[in-house]
Formats: sequence, structure tokens, C-alpha cells
Amino acid sequence: MMDTDIQASLAQAPVRLGMVGGGRGAFIGAVHRWAAGLDSHYRLVAGAFSSDPENARASAAECGVAADRAYASYEEMAKAEAARPDGIEAVAIVTPNHLHVPVALAFLRAGIHVICEKPVALDLAEAQDLAREVARSGRIFALTHNYTGYPMLRQAKAMVAAGKLGKIRVIQAEYVQDWMTEDTHSKQADWRIDPARAGAGGALGDIATHAYNALSFVTGLKLETVLADLTAFVPGRQLDDNDHLLLRFEGGAKGMLWATQVAPGNENALSLRVFGETGGLEWRQENPNYLRYTPFGEPTRILTRGGAGTGPEAQRVTRTPAGHPEGYLEGFANIYVDVAQAIAAARLGVGYRDAAYPTIEDGVDGMRFIEAAVRSSRDGGVWTRLDG
Amino acid sequence: MMDTDIQASLAQAPVRLGMVGGGRGAFIGAVHRWAAGLDSHYRLVAGAFSSDPENARASAAECGVAADRAYASYEEMAKAEAARPDGIEAVAIVTPNHLHVPVALAFLRAGIHVICEKPVALDLAEAQDLAREVARSGRIFALTHNYTGYPMLRQAKAMVAAGKLGKIRVIQAEYVQDWMTEDTHSKQADWRIDPARAGAGGALGDIATHAYNALSFVTGLKLETVLADLTAFVPGRQLDDNDHLLLRFEGGAKGMLWATQVAPGNENALSLRVFGETGGLEWRQENPNYLRYTPFGEPTRILTRGGAGTGPEAQRVTRTPAGHPEGYLEGFANIYVDVAQAIAAARLGVGYRDAAYPTIEDGVDGMRFIEAAVRSSRDGGVWTRLDG
Amino acid sequence: MMDTDIQASLAQAPVRLGMVGGGRGAFIGAVHRWAAGLDSHYRLVAGAFSSDPENARASAAECGVAADRAYASYEEMAKAEAARPDGIEAVAIVTPNHLHVPVALAFLRAGIHVICEKPVALDLAEAQDLAREVARSGRIFALTHNYTGYPMLRQAKAMVAAGKLGKIRVIQAEYVQDWMTEDTHSKQADWRIDPARAGAGGALGDIATHAYNALSFVTGLKLETVLADLTAFVPGRQLDDNDHLLLRFEGGAKGMLWATQVAPGNENALSLRVFGETGGLEWRQENPNYLRYTPFGEPTRILTRGGAGTGPEAQRVTRTPAGHPEGYLEGFANIYVDVAQAIAAARLGVGYRDAAYPTIEDGVDGMRFIEAAVRSSRDGGVWTRLDG
Amino acid sequence: MMDTDIQASLAQAPVRLGMVGGGRGAFIGAVHRWAAGLDSHYRLVAGAFSSDPENARASAAECGVAADRAYASYEEMAKAEAARPDGIEAVAIVTPNHLHVPVALAFLRAGIHVICEKPVALDLAEAQDLAREVARSGRIFALTHNYTGYPMLRQAKAMVAAGKLGKIRVIQAEYVQDWMTEDTHSKQADWRIDPARAGAGGALGDIATHAYNALSFVTGLKLETVLADLTAFVPGRQLDDNDHLLLRFEGGAKGMLWATQVAPGNENALSLRVFGETGGLEWRQENPNYLRYTPFGEPTRILTRGGAGTGPEAQRVTRTPAGHPEGYLEGFANIYVDVAQAIAAARLGVGYRDAAYPTIEDGVDGMRFIEAAVRSSRDGGVWTRLDG
Repeated sequence: MMDTDIQASLAQAPVRLGMVGGGRGAFIGAVHRWAAGLDSHYRLVAGAFSSDPENARASAAECGVAADRAYASYEEMAKAEAARPDGIEAVAIVTPNHLHVPVALAFLRAGIHVICEKPVALDLAEAQDLAREVARSGRIFALTHNYTGYPMLRQAKAMVAAGKLGKIRVIQAEYVQDWMTEDTHSKQADWRIDPARAGAGGALGDIATHAYNALSFVTGLKLETVLADLTAFVPGRQLDDNDHLLLRFEGGAKGMLWATQVAPGNENALSLRVFGETGGLEWRQENPNYLRYTPFGEPTRILTRGGAGTGPEAQRVTRTPAGHPEGYLEGFANIYVDVAQAIAAARLGVGYRDAAYPTIEDGVDGMRFIEAAVRSSRDGGVWTRLDG
Repeated sequence: MMDTDIQASLAQAPVRLGMVGGGRGAFIGAVHRWAAGLDSHYRLVAGAFSSDPENARASAAECGVAADRAYASYEEMAKAEAARPDGIEAVAIVTPNHLHVPVALAFLRAGIHVICEKPVALDLAEAQDLAREVARSGRIFALTHNYTGYPMLRQAKAMVAAGKLGKIRVIQAEYVQDWMTEDTHSKQADWRIDPARAGAGGALGDIATHAYNALSFVTGLKLETVLADLTAFVPGRQLDDNDHLLLRFEGGAKGMLWATQVAPGNENALSLRVFGETGGLEWRQENPNYLRYTPFGEPTRILTRGGAGTGPEAQRVTRTPAGHPEGYLEGFANIYVDVAQAIAAARLGVGYRDAAYPTIEDGVDGMRFIEAAVRSSRDGGVWTRLDG
Repeated sequence: MMDTDIQASLAQAPVRLGMVGGGRGAFIGAVHRWAAGLDSHYRLVAGAFSSDPENARASAAECGVAADRAYASYEEMAKAEAARPDGIEAVAIVTPNHLHVPVALAFLRAGIHVICEKPVALDLAEAQDLAREVARSGRIFALTHNYTGYPMLRQAKAMVAAGKLGKIRVIQAEYVQDWMTEDTHSKQADWRIDPARAGAGGALGDIATHAYNALSFVTGLKLETVLADLTAFVPGRQLDDNDHLLLRFEGGAKGMLWATQVAPGNENALSLRVFGETGGLEWRQENPNYLRYTPFGEPTRILTRGGAGTGPEAQRVTRTPAGHPEGYLEGFANIYVDVAQAIAAARLGVGYRDAAYPTIEDGVDGMRFIEAAVRSSRDGGVWTRLDG
Repeated sequence: MMDTDIQASLAQAPVRLGMVGGGRGAFIGAVHRWAAGLDSHYRLVAGAFSSDPENARASAAECGVAADRAYASYEEMAKAEAARPDGIEAVAIVTPNHLHVPVALAFLRAGIHVICEKPVALDLAEAQDLAREVARSGRIFALTHNYTGYPMLRQAKAMVAAGKLGKIRVIQAEYVQDWMTEDTHSKQADWRIDPARAGAGGALGDIATHAYNALSFVTGLKLETVLADLTAFVPGRQLDDNDHLLLRFEGGAKGMLWATQVAPGNENALSLRVFGETGGLEWRQENPNYLRYTPFGEPTRILTRGGAGTGPEAQRVTRTPAGHPEGYLEGFANIYVDVAQAIAAARLGVGYRDAAYPTIEDGVDGMRFIEAAVRSSRDGGVWTRLDG
């Protein structure tokens, strides 16, 4: 799975990790900690977990972070950690969206690698600024479009690339939830429906971007124009909670994308269906160990993670044998493993050819997508080119 | 299930049925014969099965139609049957689309009830002409949007009407096939891709109309505007084989509709998902005996045909107990039973309150939908109001 | 699908059918009428529908049977119909179990073909008596083990016969219901739990025999010994409502069979899984259009009725294209079509090679199975050889 | 989720863990390391990974274990670690079965807590010896019947205990694999089919015990008698690869258990179905986030991990929100978390009431089950009481 030297480096010295955001009661911070812990390639040693000092202190204690490395602000943390000989090598940014770029800039400028939640920025311009800083810094920047860590999505990508479907014609992507069906309020919900903290997209930035990233990852197609009909169904909600999008890709493929947070009976139903001239694929995140594959004119095959018919791209990120289901955290952890190896390679000054984690390019592309969709919808639902 | 007198009338004298189209090798003609036969409420006694005399004669023999009632043309058939004391009471029209209206007009003018395949006409104007003749004639006109005959789609309609979902917000409809993935040619395929016989829509008229009819049937919502991106992916094909549609309904609900005949791995995957303020429903034609229902905040229930939780609207069209699956022909036959009862009521001069079969109004509405979608797509994919 | 002369015979003159049992409120009588009606190869013209005269008369009227052919007893019916020039050619026996043999004998002796419900008799000796009479009479005797009419079970049989699984090792059969979970009473339930009318087996005769027939049909294996643990869970119930069986076949294959009527959440869950040295199959009655097939070491294939990979044995009993689901009545009707063709062949004095309907041999074998299982359980659950 | 002091203890000082077995190429050792790593409650600091010195050394390096704590034998390791002030607090035993008891005894006697793979011993007597030592030592002994760590199996247990199913009548348990369909040889396979290393049961000890443990865990019923028909289908194989068992429980419930490693098309299909007087449950390990629940006479509910209708027993072991699937490693890790908390409580000298991990009692009970089943089968398949 890994180059021997890289593996040895990580076994001897796990990556020293810090976290910004992710205090008590936050969902995604815990997810990053599990993802980092699973393979024992990281040790969480510092954090600015919350803007609330009491929460920050308590969260650090719960995470086993020493009191003197529990910071009150990310600026302070970046500075102090950069100055320590045993300072963090990487930071995980799990704040609301509006802080992604400022925090990332602070750590990159301090020479620290960054693992950042999506969407990467509040708007395209900010994302492009960040991209320039990433390039300048030479540091690793990984964006946790975690669903691309699932083995069977890797398998799907490999099959498309190998021509198993022929030329792609149609893409159907969905991300369907129901948790915001009512006018719900919680730590999780509130920033997501506040344009100042979430950006111009609600469901669009929160989940449609995942679907867009997944379809781009699998097909490799470039989206040319988008037409969006964004709606906020819950009265008083300022950001969209239901998104209907039509897609047109370079080369003639077309697609539909539905993202919603108001569809009762759906939990986290990200799915992707891809159809080409000679075959079709179907993958569903809630049962991620399966991939349906149909060569046109033949019976559908059920490919399983770890089972017959999966190739090296999926096997590389497979831990347990077929039938021993892997889930969300394993997929997420695959991104973390990949980044750890990249960091170890950087330590050793060697190349790392296998990188498959999402990068700032994915982040910029996601913002392009969000901005075009928002513009399309504001103009009444018209075909809109992706800029930039 | 039925009024006693109506039932007695049908038991004593099944409806005398004729058929236009449906000769050897045609799929849909056989379907109508099975649907008519299942409950023994019809007897097929006359036909103009084919424009090819040899096929017409052979088809009649296979169907047990006497040689003297195997006609060479529908005009002749309408005239001759109207003149016989034991002439047909109803005709089933199962020709390619361009003949629906001329044949229907001929039989309605001869005083004969009509059961007609969809889409009802080549264009809206023709459908409206037919609607006027239906009204004038006082005859029964049933359109075989057969999927509305499925018990669990009736159940879905009843639940929406009873407010189980609250106000409807989002509708997702699909009709996904793969049989035209390649440049296929057959009796079935050829007229469907010929604008002169199929009309302006390919997949649009053939299958998208079913999805549209199903969603209208279940939700009762009126479509205001549509935006369509129609594509013919197979080189040289003159009509669309993949349709991406966005929908906006009166009252604010929104929808997406995907119809395709080029998605490998899909056979006849009509599905409907409806979401309201307080609940959601999901139904899939290929496993039609199930309806998923989720009251928001509670576990999903699997309602089954004939099982606990189904109401009178579904039970009325249920033959076998739960777990004894009913299929496509049973659903189709439910339309035929309904029409038979309406015909028997007409014989008796009594009212028939339970009619649930699709009518010429559905046909006109379907043509409105097709025309708006075709116009939208030709204009580049713009929001287009339904006319008429 | 059929020989031309046979087809012509049936088209010109559908089989004249009578029915014994199946009056108002009976489930299985209606099923036989739908099964006979679907393909228009039969006309129901006589009946002894009920031992209750009022029910008998009303049922006849509902079925369109003339009053003078609505008989008060089956003996009278057999005699009268045999004497008419237009008398019935075949009778469908849909009574409780204890009447199967007496009624069948009466009609066979009157020279009339018999279509009979299962289990064929109250005990093995009675079944063997009947078998002798069938042989003597030269009449057709079909037993409605209807599940063998399903196309994908035919496909399974063909694949086993073709060696797709290699030598069979393990068979898992289930028939799981819940409708008798409580001490329910109804026309349907009462005779099934009365040893005088049902025989020595409750769930055993009612449903386990179907599972046993299905596994015998598909694998062709001969059962040598059975071990049964039969239970009546509902207090006061005289016959078993839950059956656990272990099976040992000639040649070394082994099996398990579970039949129950007290498993909440199950409607009519007959299933069959067969595993051999090189592959496995799985079929489920409630979604009968699918067959899972796994060649060892390869991905599982989903074979679909009418789809790629199905052979002539399944296609012969397939009406609608893939994705247009066929159900319980279509499978049942396949048995009726087969018998109609055999009757027409008999009319014509020609051979009929394609017969696949269950016969008296299946009936005798089923009684052997029931008797051995009852004996095994009464002896405390011991290995018991099938006799006879 | 945890008592504050316990949590603080673990955050400040993760449990120092050692491992015996689990060298390169072993599956289950890696599983234990992931399970221990996920929540950062353990640090692996010592190991006797292999009897092969080169493998032992390389495995230690890969796991980040210092060279001086990579031991050549478990005896040496127990002695050395017990003597270190920073010695391991617990050991994970992931060797072939025959070593479980000797290794466990060595560490218990050294005062070190034990986490041990199943089946716990080669025979019942050995397991009972171990049970005495566990009691004497006062140390924690956890058996990794990991499937009981799945949230929805906890939910099932809680529902049965709360009477949601009424009195239990029928239990159906399966554990179905195909990886030993052929005469396969590998590190994984070889010791499993060697009586000297695996014990008297093949599939029986390897997987049937898991199914037995799961059904005991959920229902709380005590098995009285078992009847087993064990088979080795692959020529030359010394231990069973296919097990058919009938079960009779105290109080009258009955069950069937099928375990196999030769059923092509099945990967790791552990499933459990439980039916009582008023309801039924169904759970399948390969899609572990769902639990089907049917109150008799009502529609089936799909309970989801983290979703509506799950209680505190499941929530306690739930990490991610509904729709973000948890898998095998999360379930396994739940056992590890539970043990870590018990160890921290022991450190603090406080009680730990929430323990739900399987113990030596489960181990002894599993051996009782294996021995009775082996005896039953050797005697020809007869009802056999569980001893001891």
C-alpha cells in the first residue's frame, strides 16, 4: 500500500496534527479526529477548538490536548506552533465556511500543511487567492471532499477511465437529506443557513458541491454550463434548501443534479449514476460497498468492495475483506492516510506519486460551480457558463 | 368491488371488444388483450390488426376472431361493426401515435366507446379536436396511462389527498430505459423514432408522458412552466432519446423529470418520489407492490399492496393478498375493469361514480406537456408556459 | 411459443372449464379464474362452487356461469357435464384438501381432465390411489404447484441442469408468512387448521410443500431423509404453524427448509437458494422477476425476466418485456396455458412435448414428504426416510 | 457517553496496549489495531506479533512498536511488560485458536487485562479453566464477539428486552460465506481447517459461534438442546465447512442456524431474524445500519442507526449521524471503547456499570455450544443437551 520509507516514517513518528474548530457538540470535528485516528498515522497535539474559551479548554481536555496547546485563537496557534520544535506539521480546519480561507492562509504562511473542510471559501475570488498562496507556500493543501475516499467510487473512476462505459452521455447525481425539513435550529443548522457564515449557497455549498465533486472525480468531465433552480422552501430561510440543476459538459454529455435538505425519508442519500455508449454504473453512499455495473446488453453485475472484479485503485483504499462493510469514517480516513503519506514524503524529500486527495483545484472548481449556479438561479434559471 | 347490477351485466355479457393495430409482433396489442382477458369482462370479437392483409388475417386467427370480422381497414371496421346487432361496444386502439386520432374519431362517430393508447395525438390541436368529438359523442374515451392502475400508486394519490405529506414541495419523477442505447431497428423501435408516426417527441411522448401523467395523478398539482433539455444521443436519431426537465407547479412546488432510453442497466424504471412539508413517498414501477412512506421525524414505513396501512382506493384494485405480487398486466387490467364497469353502467343507463381511468383530459394535458417541452428545448432550454 | 395447430385449436375453441369450490370469499378460486382468463384459452361454463346453495348460485352468477350449470354437488356436476355434448373438458378443483381426491376421482372417471390444488390428498395412500386412477384414465392431471410457473424459477432449473452451479451441495428453502400469528379465524384459516380437512400437516401441507416442490423442481434432486421439528405456537392450534426441517439428498447434498405462518413482517416469502461446487443461485417469490447468479469467484449477476442471459425455458413463459413486472397470476397462468395446450393436443390426438406443469407424480411425492416430516416430528425430531 | 473522570483518564493517558499474533499478512490483527486506533483510547506499544522472528520484527516496525518491545515469545513479553513501570495495561490476543488460552493465562497471571479473539478455547474444559483464572485474577477479560458492537444489534436487544416482540417464538440465524468453496490454501485458511489449531469445529468455531453469540445477545434466551448436521463438502477437508443446526430454547422458542463457507455469492452474510408473539425483527451484518421491525398487523418500519426510533443503547455506540454509514470497524471499535472505559475505571478504582463487551462467560457458553454441536453431528444428527 505504501512505499517502505514513507511507512517507516509514519510508524516511527505519526504526523503532529492541530485542529481549528471542532469543539464540543460539533459533528465534523469529531469525524476528522476519528478519520485521523483510525490508522494511527496522526497524533492530535494542539487545537483552537472554539471561540468560546470554556468550550475550547474542555474540548482540548477531552481530546487529550495539553492545556498549553489549547489556543484561544487560530492566529495565536499558528504563530506559537510554528515556533515550537515539536510544533504541528498539519492543521485540520473544521470551522464554518467563512473562516476556511483566513485560517488556511494563517497556517500556510506559517509553513504548516492544511487539511480543510469544504466548500473552501465564501466565493470564487477568495478561493483563487487561497490557491495562489498554496502555490507560493509549497505546502500540502487537502480539501475533505471525503466521499472520493470511498473504494467503490475509486473503482467507478477507474472503470470510466478504462473505457468500460464508452463515451459518457448522461450523469445523474443526487444528494438528498431531510434534516432541515422544518425550521430547525441548532449549532449544526444555524451557520449553514446564514449567508455571512455559509456563503451564497445553502444546500448548494453544503451538499450539492459534494455531488458535483463526486461526479467530476468519477467522470473527469468538465462542466461548461449549468442551469439552476434554487429554492428555500422553509419560510424565512435565507439560503436554498432544495436545488434543481441541469448540466452540460464539454464533449456533449449532459446531467441532472438534485440536492435537497427537505425530503422526508432521506438521511444522507448521495448517489451517482453514469451512463455511456456501452455501459452504466450506479453507486449509493448509504450502501457504499456496492457498485452496480451493466455492460449494455448483459446482466447487471454487483461489484463489491474487496470482491471479485475490483481493481488496484479500490484495493489500495480497502481495509477489510468483502462483506465486512466499510463506512463513512473509513472513506474519510482514506483521505487522511493519503495526506499523511504525502506529508511523510515531504519530510523525506521524496516524491509521492499516488496522491488522490482533493486539492485546492477542487476547491476552486467547486466555488466556480457554486457561483455559476447562484447566478443562474438569480437570473430566473438560465444557462450559465462556469467562469474562471 | 362493483355495484351488483353492473357486475351482473358484465357476468352475463362481457363487453364485445374490437382492436385496431396490435398484429403479430406488436407488443402493446398483446398487453391489451391480456389486460382485457384477465377478469373475463371482455370478449375480443373483431379487429383491424394490421395494414398488412396477411398479418391481419393471421393475427385474427390467433386471437380467435372470426374471419368475417377481421377487417382490412379501421374505416371499414367501424362501419361494419356499427351496423351489426352484435357489433363491438368498444374498440382498443393500439396503433402508432399518428393514427390514434383518426381511428378514435371514426369509432366515436360510429357510436363506439374507445380505449386508446398514449400519447393521444400528434399535437395539441389534434388532441383538442378529439376532445370536442368525445364530448359531442357522449361515448366513453379511456386513455391507457396504465401505470395509474397500480394499487400502490392509487394509495399514494389517496395519501397525498388526505394530507399525509402536507403541502407538496418537491416531485422527482423518472422513466429510465436502455433498450435504445444503440441504433436499434425493429417494428417496436422504428415508428417511435419517426416524427411522422410518433409526433414531435421521442422518449418524451413514449415515456416522459407516463411519468408526467403519474405525477399529476398522484399529486393533483397543475404544471405551470417547464424547462426541457432534450437530446438525441444516438447519431442520426431524429427524435429525443434522453430528456432532462425542470418543473414548476402552481402553488410553488417544483420538480425534476428524467426520461431516457439510453441508460444501460435500466429496463423500465418508472419511479416517483413526492415530498411535502410533513412527509415523503417513494414508489418504483419495477417493484410496484411497495410504497415507502416517511412521516417526517419517524422511521420509514414499507406499505405493501394488500397489507396493513393501505386504504380503500388501493384495495379496490387489489386482486391477490399481500406477498403475492401483482405486476404490469394487473395494473393495466385495472384500467380495463374500470372501463368495463363504465360501459356496463352505460348499458344500464345508471351512473358510475367510481371511474378512475384516464380520460381525454389526460390526453390533452399530455399533449400540452409535450408541446411545451419541445418548444422549450428548441428555444435552447428556457422556461416555457403550458398553453391551452 | 406454441405449435400452430394447438394454437389454432385454442383460438377457435377455448377449453370449456368447470370449477369445484371457489365460491364467494374464497381466495384460491378467484386466482384460478384469473389464471384461466388471462390468455383467453379457457371459458368457465360450469361450477359446483359451494356446499352452501345460496353461495353456489350467487357465485355462478358472478362468474357468468348459467344457472343450469351451477350444480349443488360435484357428483352431480361430473355426471351432468359428462353427458352434455358441450360439457366441460376440464375441471379446476379448489376445495379444502380433504375433497381433492374424491372430486378428482369423480371427474377422471367421467373422462374429464383435472387441474387440482395442492396438497393433492390427505395422506400418501390416498394420493397413490389417485395416481393409479390418473394412469388408468389417460386424462391430464395437473397439480397447481403454481410457483413453478414463474419464468425465473424455470431459468434456475435450466441453469442447474446445464451445470452452471456444478454438483449441488446445499439447498436453502423458505416459505415465511405471518397471517396466522394470532389465533385467527376466517373461512381461509379454519379449514387449514382442522386436521379433518387439511390433513396431518398445517403449514407443512399448505406452504412447506410448495417450498419442497420448488426445490425439487429446480434441482432435480431426490430427497432421501428428512428431520422435522414441527410446532404449533398458537395455543390450541391443532396443526403446525412453524416447521424446521433438515434435508439429506441422494448424492450427498443437504438442505434446510423453514416454513412458518407466525413470523411477523413476512407476507408470502417463498425463497430458494441453491449452491454448488462452482456457483450459486437465489430467487425470491415476492420479487420474482429477478434471479441472482454468482459463478464462484466472479461478481454476482442480476438476471431479469426477459433480460439478457435468460434462456428459452424462461422466455417460453414470459409475456412482457424486462422491467414490466410479471407477478403471481402470470406465473399461475403459465400452468394454465401449459395445460390448455396439452388439452388441445389431446383434442387433436397429437403429442405435446413441452409439458412442464406439475403432475400427479409431484402430488405423490409431496405426500411422501409430508408423511415423513410428520412422522419425524412425532418421533421427537429424528432422521426419517421418505417411503414409497 | 462516558463518565467524566473515565473520559479524562483516557484523554490524558490512552491505554497502553500489547498484541500477541497479528503479524504481517494476518487479517484480524490489523482489524484490532484499527479498532483500537479509531477513538484514540489506546496506544500500541508492545507485541509478540509472530513466531517467525523476521515477521515479528518487521511487524513491530510497521506498527510503530519500539524494537526493544518487539518480543520473540508471548511468555517473554508477559514477563518483561509486567516488570516495566510503563508496561502494557492490556493485551490483544489474535493468534490461532489453540493459543488463546495459554496466552491469556500468561498475561492474566502477570496482572494484565486481556482482549481475546474467539472461539476462546479448543474445548470446554480449557475454557472453564480460563474462566477460573479470570475470576481469580480480577482482571478484565473481553472476548471480541465484535458483532455485538453494532448499534442496531444493540437496538434489537433493547427492543426484545422491552417486550416489543412479545414472547419469542422463532429465531433464524445465518452466517454465510463462500471463500472456502474450493480447496483454498492461505495463511488465513490453513489453521482454520487444522483441528490441532482450530479445535473440533471448522465453520462451527469460526463463524457459527458468532451467529450463536449474536442470537443469545439479542434474545437473552438460553439454548437447551441442539441438533447439528455438520459437513465438510470440500474433499479432504478435515473440519466442517457447512453447518445445519436446529435449536430448542428454554421456554419453548425454537431456531435454525445455518453457517457455511461454501455458498458462492455470499461474502460475510451474518443475519438474524427474531419473531415473537407480537412482532418481528430482521438485521443483516452486510448492511448493518438498518433494522427492520414489524409490529404484527402494522407496516414494517426501517429503523436506521442514528435515526428516529432508536434508543439510548444504540445511541451510546453511534458515532456518525444517520445516513453516514458505520461499518465493521466501528462496531469492532465499540467493543474496544467499552473495554478502555472499563480499564480506566479500574485505574480509578471506580465502578463501571455500562459494560456491554462479551466476557469469559460468552466464551464458555460458546464452547458449550460447539461441543454439543460436534457431539450431535458425530452421533448422526441427534438432539443433544448443552452441558456444563
